[in-house]
Amino acid sequence: MDTIAPDSYVLVYRDRRRKWLVKPKDTPKLHTHLGILDLTALVGREYGIRAITTLGDELIILKPTIEDLIMKLARRTQVIYPKDLGFMMVKLGVHAGSRVVETGTGSGATTALLAYLVRPGGTVYTYDINPGFQEEAKKNIEKVGLAEAVMFKVRDSRLGFDETGMDAGVLDVGDPWEVIPAMRKALKPSAPMAAITPTTNQAERLVARMKDEGFAAIETLEIMMRNLEARVGMTRPSNHMIGHTAYLTFARSTSGSSNAVESSVAPP
Amino acid sequence: MDTIAPDSYVLVYRDRRRKWLVKPKDTPKLHTHLGILDLTALVGREYGIRAITTLGDELIILKPTIEDLIMKLARRTQVIYPKDLGFMMVKLGVHAGSRVVETGTGSGATTALLAYLVRPGGTVYTYDINPGFQEEAKKNIEKVGLAEAVMFKVRDSRLGFDETGMDAGVLDVGDPWEVIPAMRKALKPSAPMAAITPTTNQAERLVARMKDEGFAAIETLEIMMRNLEARVGMTRPSNHMIGHTAYLTFARSTSGSSNAVESSVAPP
Amino acid sequence: MDTIAPDSYVLVYRDRRRKWLVKPKDTPKLHTHLGILDLTALVGREYGIRAITTLGDELIILKPTIEDLIMKLARRTQVIYPKDLGFMMVKLGVHAGSRVVETGTGSGATTALLAYLVRPGGTVYTYDINPGFQEEAKKNIEKVGLAEAVMFKVRDSRLGFDETGMDAGVLDVGDPWEVIPAMRKALKPSAPMAAITPTTNQAERLVARMKDEGFAAIETLEIMMRNLEARVGMTRPSNHMIGHTAYLTFARSTSGSSNAVESSVAPP
Amino acid sequence: MDTIAPDSYVLVYRDRRRKWLVKPKDTPKLHTHLGILDLTALVGREYGIRAITTLGDELIILKPTIEDLIMKLARRTQVIYPKDLGFMMVKLGVHAGSRVVETGTGSGATTALLAYLVRPGGTVYTYDINPGFQEEAKKNIEKVGLAEAVMFKVRDSRLGFDETGMDAGVLDVGDPWEVIPAMRKALKPSAPMAAITPTTNQAERLVARMKDEGFAAIETLEIMMRNLEARVGMTRPSNHMIGHTAYLTFARSTSGSSNAVESSVAPP
Repeated sequence: MDTIAPDSYVLVYRDRRRKWLVKPKDTPKLHTHLGILDLTALVGREYGIRAITTLGDELIILKPTIEDLIMKLARRTQVIYPKDLGFMMVKLGVHAGSRVVETGTGSGATTALLAYLVRPGGTVYTYDINPGFQEEAKKNIEKVGLAEAVMFKVRDSRLGFDETGMDAGVLDVGDPWEVIPAMRKALKPSAPMAAITPTTNQAERLVARMKDEGFAAIETLEIMMRNLEARVGMTRPSNHMIGHTAYLTFARSTSGSSNAVESSVAPP
Repeated sequence: MDTIAPDSYVLVYRDRRRKWLVKPKDTPKLHTHLGILDLTALVGREYGIRAITTLGDELIILKPTIEDLIMKLARRTQVIYPKDLGFMMVKLGVHAGSRVVETGTGSGATTALLAYLVRPGGTVYTYDINPGFQEEAKKNIEKVGLAEAVMFKVRDSRLGFDETGMDAGVLDVGDPWEVIPAMRKALKPSAPMAAITPTTNQAERLVARMKDEGFAAIETLEIMMRNLEARVGMTRPSNHMIGHTAYLTFARSTSGSSNAVESSVAPP
Repeated sequence: MDTIAPDSYVLVYRDRRRKWLVKPKDTPKLHTHLGILDLTALVGREYGIRAITTLGDELIILKPTIEDLIMKLARRTQVIYPKDLGFMMVKLGVHAGSRVVETGTGSGATTALLAYLVRPGGTVYTYDINPGFQEEAKKNIEKVGLAEAVMFKVRDSRLGFDETGMDAGVLDVGDPWEVIPAMRKALKPSAPMAAITPTTNQAERLVARMKDEGFAAIETLEIMMRNLEARVGMTRPSNHMIGHTAYLTFARSTSGSSNAVESSVAPP
Repeated sequence: MDTIAPDSYVLVYRDRRRKWLVKPKDTPKLHTHLGILDLTALVGREYGIRAITTLGDELIILKPTIEDLIMKLARRTQVIYPKDLGFMMVKLGVHAGSRVVETGTGSGATTALLAYLVRPGGTVYTYDINPGFQEEAKKNIEKVGLAEAVMFKVRDSRLGFDETGMDAGVLDVGDPWEVIPAMRKALKPSAPMAAITPTTNQAERLVARMKDEGFAAIETLEIMMRNLEARVGMTRPSNHMIGHTAYLTFARSTSGSSNAVESSVAPP
């Protein structure tokens, strides 16, 4: 069983919109509109229990998942959502031991999920041109205990990555087409990459550049998620829905057409 | 670099709709409407190269990702798609070392992705009431080299799982509500679970049962994916789109309300 | 040209979210966060002009369309949106001269659109069990000048409609299945009808009852609308989107199977 | 009651995908995979009846709605669907007496719906640069009995429309931005217009031009429609869905900013 320590993150959960990610050490008393919750009383207990506020309201004490941590890390302006990240991970085939190159680091939300999945044995090499962002992301990644799997680099990734033979790549910058040549050099031939772009114009330019640089299996798509309010006799989709986060573009690196293998025509 | 062996899977790729997952050993000559491809000529070469058919057409030789393998494993009637699976993996927090219980095994597509992510150190315990399905899934999982991380069990999972303290659970059966009590016993308190149901009626019954059994953070949703045809000056969403695969329901196990922690009202 | 009178509605338009539907007579000075607009100065001018507030901001003076009027009439809790209504009108084939039966009247938003389209020569017979709602809707319809085409009736429509031979029918009540037998008697054979239901359960019960009562060409669907922010070089779908309003169910009345026409087998 | 004549269109309906729009005069015997239907036997009978094929299968005989006629007129390459047209009609406020200008005519599907709604008293002025398309559309419109409300003109509409003071306008050409100045001259100030464009690039260019030409209340959007398979105990969205037809752009004509009305600052 997982026991709560003073330094453990706990997710205090009421419903989808009312939840708090806190540590007993930092927030001994959690003040909510439902009353005060004494977090120090949770230390030594296991996750999954219920806790009663001073106003008698019940809250659930959960162990945060990687999704909870990502959502906490994400800046308000961040457009990457778990719906997009989950699909990216499957497309990229990221798993224990993978070596992944990423630019830009941003708030570190994507970095955190990549790091979570490549452990043990793998590494995420994450680049950002902005030292301030990089520093903040580093703190975030440390806070959630994933720093061992991440190498942070402050760099304009258009100038190239230090790594080669990478298993997968992630582009989350405003001008991803400018990084395509560098990405190609960094990736193993056949390796998958993903790029995140909010606008159709970015996707358009990116795909054109990918084709020029010999990437294959290029595909752009968007993922929409809608909640279903499942209640006995009155089930209906949620009125609220996020209309758009970003377009995702996927492609596979290739070794170029110079060394294509010819199929000899078999004699009859 | 990854070199192609006679027994390696290769993904012969032309475009999104025309691709073949084959092994040189089993398919020395791949006959397509674009001509014949001599797969034996690929042995010893690296992935990512291009190959020319007898009709002079170019195809790309890719190393299949876990997504390619899953799509191959999935039966035609299968409703689970990578868009759904990717999001499930993030919600479940599955990673190296995770211990996951799943029912039913079905074609083994979900099992394969789980196994891919829990290695090394983790195990997927997968149950199916149908010995025939289970047998076929086992062969599929072996074929893609993931058998070491999977324990197969032929069992009516409504009668209970052998395991306890599981990190995550997946329900993909017609009557998932019947398995909720067993799932609760198998999961660690606070552990996440996911269930896949095609109909609104199933989601409705499932959610009601989850509430009765003390699950928390229950959420049902659907994920829609649409391709964007990104072409310079003529970008548009794809005319073709899959309207529905399944509703996904997520929840967190709890340890029940009997042992709730009270917050003492602090004296002023 | 259309000239603004003291009693004319004008739509003062700034952008999609900031617009005001007012009359110079009732609102001589329109106070907005962009300054004050002197509406009396608009009298005698034509629609389509621009007007400058006391703070120097420019607003556009538009003649409200039926959509603007409907959106104004709709109560906040109302789930019918123009996206749904427009499609309904095409499916119902409502046009000048149509005779349409509707229940319930609700806020009168649907009634207003129907009345707008059936003039001249047609009539909307609208029923509501709630005299208060009916009274409010009547005032609304009068306000927008469409009262001549509407007959208001306070009635439990499950007990039947007074009319027969109707060209089309609209059901917008909580238990539409209970009104199906009455609707069938009111409609001309082959006439189309539409029903609006927020939940899947309502749609399910409704469709079953329609089948029992001999309706044909039954179809349930939902319409989703998403804005595209089209801006040079940075086009993207809107982040905001309404996830759900209601399911629409359409069907055609039939004259029953007792008098089916047999095709004689032609001798060879 | 509506009685079937030899020259009447009848919609022979089996289900959403199997339906035939025919006339007894032209198709005395309708051959289907469900057997032969003797259409001459329907003459003199009323719509809404059932008819039995020579193989004993039951089909429903419906009076085609304007939607059925539009879908028949639409060419296979046509991207305008009732979901889009219905919303357009509400946005444009088209009704009996409206005068509407349209370019291009295309297959005449949109023209037919406009004509259906503007009768009596209104007129649709429809332009097409292609005499062949125009001729075919004219025949289509005559076939469905709506020719009286339509004026056909073969013309490059970029060179201008003959009409002024139009109540509404519809643009369905490949380069709608080129027609914006002409459209502005044709429309009454404050009048609404709609444009249909399949690509994001077209929408982008169009919106920019509309702004330059002083149009207001510009809005681009897309409408998605998904069927719900409502069946007792097994309700689910349809697996099939059309991903994209076109973006719709709406705007309102204005009389320009030269004659803006100033609000005088009232003395305190």
